[in-house]
Amino acid sequence: MDTAMMIDTVRLTPILMADPPLLNTQGVHQPYTPRLIVEVVTKGGVTGVGETYGDGKYLDIARPLAEALPGHPVTDLNGLFALAEQVCGDSRAADESVDAGGLRGVQTTDKLRLSVVSGFEVACLDALGKTLGLPVHALLGGKVRDSVEYSAYLFYRWAAHPEGGESDDWGAALDPAGVVAQARRFAREHGFTSFKLKGGVFEPDEEIAAVRALAEAFPGRPLRLDPNGAWSVKTSLYVAEELKDVLEYLEDPASGTDRMAEVAAGTDVPLATNMCVTTFPEIPEAFARGAVQIVLSDHHYWGGLHRTRELAAICRTFGVGLSMHSNTHLGISLAAMTHVAATVPGLGHACDSHYPWQTEDVITTRHVFDGGRLAVSDAPGLGVELDRERLAALHRRWLEDDGTMRDRDDASAMRVAEPGWRTPSVPRW
Amino acid sequence: MDTAMMIDTVRLTPILMADPPLLNTQGVHQPYTPRLIVEVVTKGGVTGVGETYGDGKYLDIARPLAEALPGHPVTDLNGLFALAEQVCGDSRAADESVDAGGLRGVQTTDKLRLSVVSGFEVACLDALGKTLGLPVHALLGGKVRDSVEYSAYLFYRWAAHPEGGESDDWGAALDPAGVVAQARRFAREHGFTSFKLKGGVFEPDEEIAAVRALAEAFPGRPLRLDPNGAWSVKTSLYVAEELKDVLEYLEDPASGTDRMAEVAAGTDVPLATNMCVTTFPEIPEAFARGAVQIVLSDHHYWGGLHRTRELAAICRTFGVGLSMHSNTHLGISLAAMTHVAATVPGLGHACDSHYPWQTEDVITTRHVFDGGRLAVSDAPGLGVELDRERLAALHRRWLEDDGTMRDRDDASAMRVAEPGWRTPSVPRW
Repeated sequence: MDTAMMIDTVRLTPILMADPPLLNTQGVHQPYTPRLIVEVVTKGGVTGVGETYGDGKYLDIARPLAEALPGHPVTDLNGLFALAEQVCGDSRAADESVDAGGLRGVQTTDKLRLSVVSGFEVACLDALGKTLGLPVHALLGGKVRDSVEYSAYLFYRWAAHPEGGESDDWGAALDPAGVVAQARRFAREHGFTSFKLKGGVFEPDEEIAAVRALAEAFPGRPLRLDPNGAWSVKTSLYVAEELKDVLEYLEDPASGTDRMAEVAAGTDVPLATNMCVTTFPEIPEAFARGAVQIVLSDHHYWGGLHRTRELAAICRTFGVGLSMHSNTHLGISLAAMTHVAATVPGLGHACDSHYPWQTEDVITTRHVFDGGRLAVSDAPGLGVELDRERLAALHRRWLEDDGTMRDRDDASAMRVAEPGWRTPSVPRW
Repeated sequence: MDTAMMIDTVRLTPILMADPPLLNTQGVHQPYTPRLIVEVVTKGGVTGVGETYGDGKYLDIARPLAEALPGHPVTDLNGLFALAEQVCGDSRAADESVDAGGLRGVQTTDKLRLSVVSGFEVACLDALGKTLGLPVHALLGGKVRDSVEYSAYLFYRWAAHPEGGESDDWGAALDPAGVVAQARRFAREHGFTSFKLKGGVFEPDEEIAAVRALAEAFPGRPLRLDPNGAWSVKTSLYVAEELKDVLEYLEDPASGTDRMAEVAAGTDVPLATNMCVTTFPEIPEAFARGAVQIVLSDHHYWGGLHRTRELAAICRTFGVGLSMHSNTHLGISLAAMTHVAATVPGLGHACDSHYPWQTEDVITTRHVFDGGRLAVSDAPGLGVELDRERLAALHRRWLEDDGTMRDRDDASAMRVAEPGWRTPSVPRW
């Protein structure tokens, strides 16, 4: 193979990006959240970019992988998994106990490693596409649609972080009227026509009222509610019954496959998840028990774009729906999501994205939603360009941080406002 | 996208290739068998080649697809399926009754269409790889091994076709000694170390004796027996019990998911299939019932190399093994099989291939097995070159055929020797 496609250098740049005070059942987003920018530079001088989680436990895996990669071709995507397992073997053994719980279900070292690989895989695909003059979607077998639909990701939120940080003009949203106002602005500014509310923050009846208010404001539009597993089976079934006429799906009402299966058995409202099914080994039991009707894929979780396509094939085969989950992310990952989503047949639901909440980015031209959709880029690679000045500035912020923001901790951020706050145990209601 | 990658022309060349008198439960291979060679020529002047079944019912689907393809980019692989469904809509409706039964399970128009698409997909991948200077495996995420293991595909056979045709020096193999002699020659000439016997031809005890003889001749080697669904559940369990100490797996002992599930429940010998699971919709039930432990993938059946990788991901996820099935084929398809097999992690069994039986080919340099393995080509595309003279000669044979060989019919070939022969109904024993 052409040596121009060999990887010459890998650059890792941890950054802190501004994040608004968005509430969830575990607490509130910190003023800054860590991300890792991966750059893969080929011997041909082409740079590909990827993005993934930037907490310390991800960096610990990313560093040995970055060291091992030079000399491999950028086409060697299937080989990344074995390589990652090999070079991170030691840290894996040491870290087998890692279990940060959290919003993506139980965290294991396997999951962390796959998230790291995803950033490298996307960077390799970007470099490969730029080298060949092909968009990433063409490297995945070609797009089957020219644009990808996203949903408005609504959050209960404060007007500002109590500890400072960047400010914005969204104001607080802490009741049905606030949620509807937020949705109206999302619809006006980005054209979204489907809406998801991050729940698990207030009493279920409060959140039912918010979804009802959305249904009145946007009659007939697809609505979703996601309490991140905060509810008991009984509460989940109560909410499902109350909202069955307006919900597109209910997302992770209860925690774990057992509870999800019980909820699914008791309601016709489809259940979606990005918590009880986030890896391939979790699929067989969850599908066999009918615990989920829609898997919210996330290329960071599943190990990249090729693996996301494999997940899509599994869902298609088993008659399970597919949509896309999002955590706080930048424009690189949004481009990656859009490319892979464009190649997947039967993507029947609008994808989630936090992107509209992110005022900072590391690409030169921000993505623009039009009618709630993103056009699929036909430019080589991902179709984004790194803004090195911005990247340097956000990296400086990471360097200068005293350590409090380098590992995302929504509970700790919550304690600034509520000193006694602890991550609630589930079911919370 | 570069217009050089647009498809300019598609050439379809039906051929008849020589085939020895190999026996199976339905009859015997005819002296010549039809294949379809697909050539996709880009505006940049690059030609990609693919190969698939060549019977009339496949040609009927291939022709409108070939007409619809010019103007599409060769990267548009995911789009092939919708395009095929669209342009073959009419023939589909007309043909919904197609059910040739046969060795690949019930045939439906969906299956035929996927087989046709596979030939086009491989041709597009070959053209794309040649255009970009990349081997096909690199277009599938990269090889995870440098060579792919194949097994010796042993057949009961006659020395010659009663109606003439090409001759060879293999002689007859109609008893255990004949099967062992055949295996020895396969091992000597190609280095195969795992062996599959096509069964369903003689009484089960005869075939048990043949496998026992193989086990004695090749102690400890993986052995397989495949009666193409000819046995009852009771007979299947009897054979499994008799051979449990020497079988790697038993392939399609009984016909259909119901019987396979019953057999699987009664033996620890793993069951493999290329009959009861040959499409994605057949997977959920067969897996849920534990009817198969190994799926024998075949990119012709599953719709190409990308879909084969998806099948592999499904099998990996559900703890089902993967190997590869083969029908009579040429070097183009063997190259395609080898590329995709090279990219699939956890391919735990040697692949099947009829290739050593095929003395004719349409590529300039035949593949050579070394130690039972084929090296994975790193040349652009599939790494094979079309021999236009040979292609023209085999096409002439197709043109000059009076129609008796243009549609493979093993039962009709059998009637030349046994005038009263009818395709046996299953279970035959």
